[in-house]
Amino acid sequence: MNGRTAGKNGKRVRLSPDERRRQLITLGTRMLREHALEDISISEVAEQAGISRGLLFHYFSSKQDFQLAIVANANAELLTRTEPDRSLPLAEMLYDAVRRYVDYVSENRTSYLALLRRPAGTELMTLVDATRGAQADRIMAEIPLPADHPDRPRLELAVRGWIAFVEEVTLSWLTTETISREQLIEMLVGSLPGLAADPTLIALLGS
Amino acid sequence: MNGRTAGKNGKRVRLSPDERRRQLITLGTRMLREHALEDISISEVAEQAGISRGLLFHYFSSKQDFQLAIVANANAELLTRTEPDRSLPLAEMLYDAVRRYVDYVSENRTSYLALLRRPAGTELMTLVDATRGAQADRIMAEIPLPADHPDRPRLELAVRGWIAFVEEVTLSWLTTETISREQLIEMLVGSLPGLAADPTLIALLGS
Repeated sequence: MNGRTAGKNGKRVRLSPDERRRQLITLGTRMLREHALEDISISEVAEQAGISRGLLFHYFSSKQDFQLAIVANANAELLTRTEPDRSLPLAEMLYDAVRRYVDYVSENRTSYLALLRRPAGTELMTLVDATRGAQADRIMAEIPLPADHPDRPRLELAVRGWIAFVEEVTLSWLTTETISREQLIEMLVGSLPGLAADPTLIALLGS
Repeated sequence: MNGRTAGKNGKRVRLSPDERRRQLITLGTRMLREHALEDISISEVAEQAGISRGLLFHYFSSKQDFQLAIVANANAELLTRTEPDRSLPLAEMLYDAVRRYVDYVSENRTSYLALLRRPAGTELMTLVDATRGAQADRIMAEIPLPADHPDRPRLELAVRGWIAFVEEVTLSWLTTETISREQLIEMLVGSLPGLAADPTLIALLGS
């Protein structure tokens, strides 16, 4: 049975170990479009490939090993899909790559959300998220825009993003310390108005 | 023994259940300064509190429950430490709060890194981080700054932060869709030069 799979008309097709491994990863990655990583059923992947669950573990040492192979494949897919088109001028190249990123993430929203948002300890991430939400609310509370102002949704997204920016930059800085604390603070503060690219914020913060 | 702890001169001190719970959380949070959450030893916390390991589980139903209480406490501490000073003008208020955020995170770097960076599945997060690194490298490759240019370290941090911004905004947008896809893309692209607050980038991207 090893290396064989059910073909178009029920006949078993022989695959090389490499082809089989690739097939299983492709099936898993496809399922990632609609299931979180931890919800991908090994039995279902094996069934779709026409092999036994046990045989799948001939190609991957554990469920975790299979999950990692799926994530590595999905990441490679993301990088390929967002590969810059170097025939374009720089500003257009950025625009084009960002557009493809948004579309890729939209197509793979379930898995992408699951992967980046709560990468395991769910209750823990809920707490961390609540803290981010509280930080965003504080900032929004200082911005004198009526609740129904048309710019508000965009600004709310930008503020959430700015908090992620601040966290990432501060954590990277802690491990590298390539600039001074004062430069870091200037950069974090200076980034908010430009990031929101919002005339209201820019006017308020006088940047 | 329940409710008693070793006092200054070895005498046992009676604490109310609330005080005891608070004491254990405070001890755990203090350890978080130098240990990742998962490396905090329950036995050590119990020993420092002068109680048995078993008694600690009288106050917390499981190790995970104790860890969550520590994280909730640390998050509350962060929010208190970064509480905006509303007596200041807006721009200065932001500056002041960001400065306190950077100092808080610097003091608690081990735990903060552990909490936000690899919130459990370590190998998985390494993969996700490698993808982010590849995206940052791609952007830096398009920026014609010599490797030893003094602006480079700041720009590298900003680009890493921008990727976190893009991820957070896109994922929030996916769950809310409060603006159109085109508005989202405009916002992501438009944020890069301002975010980096960098004259080189601003000139290159013509913003």
